[in-house]
Amino acid sequence: MKDAIRVGIVGYGNLGRGVRMAVKQNPDFQLVAVFTRRSPEQVDADGVKVEHISRLEDYKGQIDVMILCGGSATDLPVQGPAIAEMFNTVDSFDTHARIPEYFAKVDEAARRGGNLSLISTGWDPGLFSLMRVLGEAVLPEGHTYTFWGKGVSQGHSDAVRRVPGVKNAIQYTIPVEDAIRRVRNGENPELTTREKHVRVCYVVPEEGADLKRIEQEIKNMPHYFADYDTTVYFISEEEFRANHSGMPHGGIVIRTGKTGESTKQKMEFNLELESNPEFTSSVLVAYARAVYRLSKEGQVGARTVFDIPIAYLSPKTGEELRREYL
Amino acid sequence: MKDAIRVGIVGYGNLGRGVRMAVKQNPDFQLVAVFTRRSPEQVDADGVKVEHISRLEDYKGQIDVMILCGGSATDLPVQGPAIAEMFNTVDSFDTHARIPEYFAKVDEAARRGGNLSLISTGWDPGLFSLMRVLGEAVLPEGHTYTFWGKGVSQGHSDAVRRVPGVKNAIQYTIPVEDAIRRVRNGENPELTTREKHVRVCYVVPEEGADLKRIEQEIKNMPHYFADYDTTVYFISEEEFRANHSGMPHGGIVIRTGKTGESTKQKMEFNLELESNPEFTSSVLVAYARAVYRLSKEGQVGARTVFDIPIAYLSPKTGEELRREYL
Repeated sequence: MKDAIRVGIVGYGNLGRGVRMAVKQNPDFQLVAVFTRRSPEQVDADGVKVEHISRLEDYKGQIDVMILCGGSATDLPVQGPAIAEMFNTVDSFDTHARIPEYFAKVDEAARRGGNLSLISTGWDPGLFSLMRVLGEAVLPEGHTYTFWGKGVSQGHSDAVRRVPGVKNAIQYTIPVEDAIRRVRNGENPELTTREKHVRVCYVVPEEGADLKRIEQEIKNMPHYFADYDTTVYFISEEEFRANHSGMPHGGIVIRTGKTGESTKQKMEFNLELESNPEFTSSVLVAYARAVYRLSKEGQVGARTVFDIPIAYLSPKTGEELRREYL
Repeated sequence: MKDAIRVGIVGYGNLGRGVRMAVKQNPDFQLVAVFTRRSPEQVDADGVKVEHISRLEDYKGQIDVMILCGGSATDLPVQGPAIAEMFNTVDSFDTHARIPEYFAKVDEAARRGGNLSLISTGWDPGLFSLMRVLGEAVLPEGHTYTFWGKGVSQGHSDAVRRVPGVKNAIQYTIPVEDAIRRVRNGENPELTTREKHVRVCYVVPEEGADLKRIEQEIKNMPHYFADYDTTVYFISEEEFRANHSGMPHGGIVIRTGKTGESTKQKMEFNLELESNPEFTSSVLVAYARAVYRLSKEGQVGARTVFDIPIAYLSPKTGEELRREYL
């Protein structure tokens, strides 16, 4: 019997709760504690010990991998490097433009502490990133397309909720069927932002609000909606609760390419997720297993999904994998 | 400018020709020579030097990775270990039941020679194997399904051609649409062999042959066809040449699972290939790049796709991958 992989969760929102549930599905893991900025007594983690985040350092030597579940905007840029100096870490940092800078900071901190840190995993960045690199490596002459949705975008939902007169709102990103069809068909189309995805908003208005104005304000919002075809539906609070409380998401990565003279080849990876945070959490836990093992082998510094052999994600031995999965 | 990766091809059939073409799409490679059991002067490799296989050893130090393109039935069991002792190798050994034994032999030979050998890559075994392990690692509670086709099975085509009265024949393996639909729908069905795939044969009969007898003999052939619903079409030599000279294939790996209480999650990887051997060749070349690099880092012994970080398949640097693909 091997020792369990002892993990901690830092940040207890949707993602943190997802990690707590994912750990239960993996018998080689032990969840030691959840760390929060709130008062620990206010947080119910289903029987798991809850500690204030200021007590992190006390757990050195008692936790093998910290799974960072804070947000990418303000939490992770600070927590990532700070915690990487104390513990092995895994996170889902997803501010694409700032990944190189974040990687460098976490790498430096992890090396200073003799730890290993995997950044930016989940499904995108994460599994989708893997598929983009795999597709291009196998079919160097071709095109890669990523479509997202149908799914809820938290950032866009937040933006709609900030419009005056909006009581509650949710935004779905939906890929354009005809664009997917053309890509699958090997047409290699050049697609504009507008041609790839549409945005649909379900809005619960304040009583007496000017619906026309709300709709225009949403549709013309620069950066968030102006470049897309956006549809706005006004619904009741009851309908909102009944039909729009989930966090589904998903998407498709397609690589179309040619080999030989002009032989068409196509690779496609797609995800259909009833819960985006629960799936992301499951990916984080699988990569925590890899971080644990690679750290035991003496690796230090920052890594991404590109650096991790798939075998390290599985609880099975190399022999079992070769016999049962190859 | 980095040195080119110098490769050789051992065995010059469909797969070997595919590798020659794939190497042309990868500017960091240089194809040094093709090795064949035939008389070299009888082989036209599009200007590439052709050598008799007995001259392999003369190329020690001049070739970084040998790409083995022989068959799994009789070529690779002998060539794999023998060549792994002299060179780094990549192969597509696909006799599933014998992989553990083959791995052990190649591992021992490669270690003896100080070389690195990646066995059993391509798409299945290969990319599909990766997806099966990835799916189960991320969604430990769930079901994995693999469907093959629509595609040509060489083994089954050969079996049909051995039936008396058959002049030429091709066999397509076709997944059952309804089975795929049920799996995608998350029904987690238990599927028998017969429920997953059907087999369709196009047969050019000898003149005057007893078509009824040929059809019965095919359909009742144990192991190959008896467990499947098989359809036999008799066609002319002209139609055969016009419509059945390609080697398309493909397939689907689906992992359906649940997270949290009962949240449904689905991962799917699928391939649509106009040419099975050309795609397999492209995978072999990408993994040859990984073998070259890992060998430079001092790794020796046998490996499978499970052991190779995806970054090693790509010609891009880690920094480029993080910036452009994450």
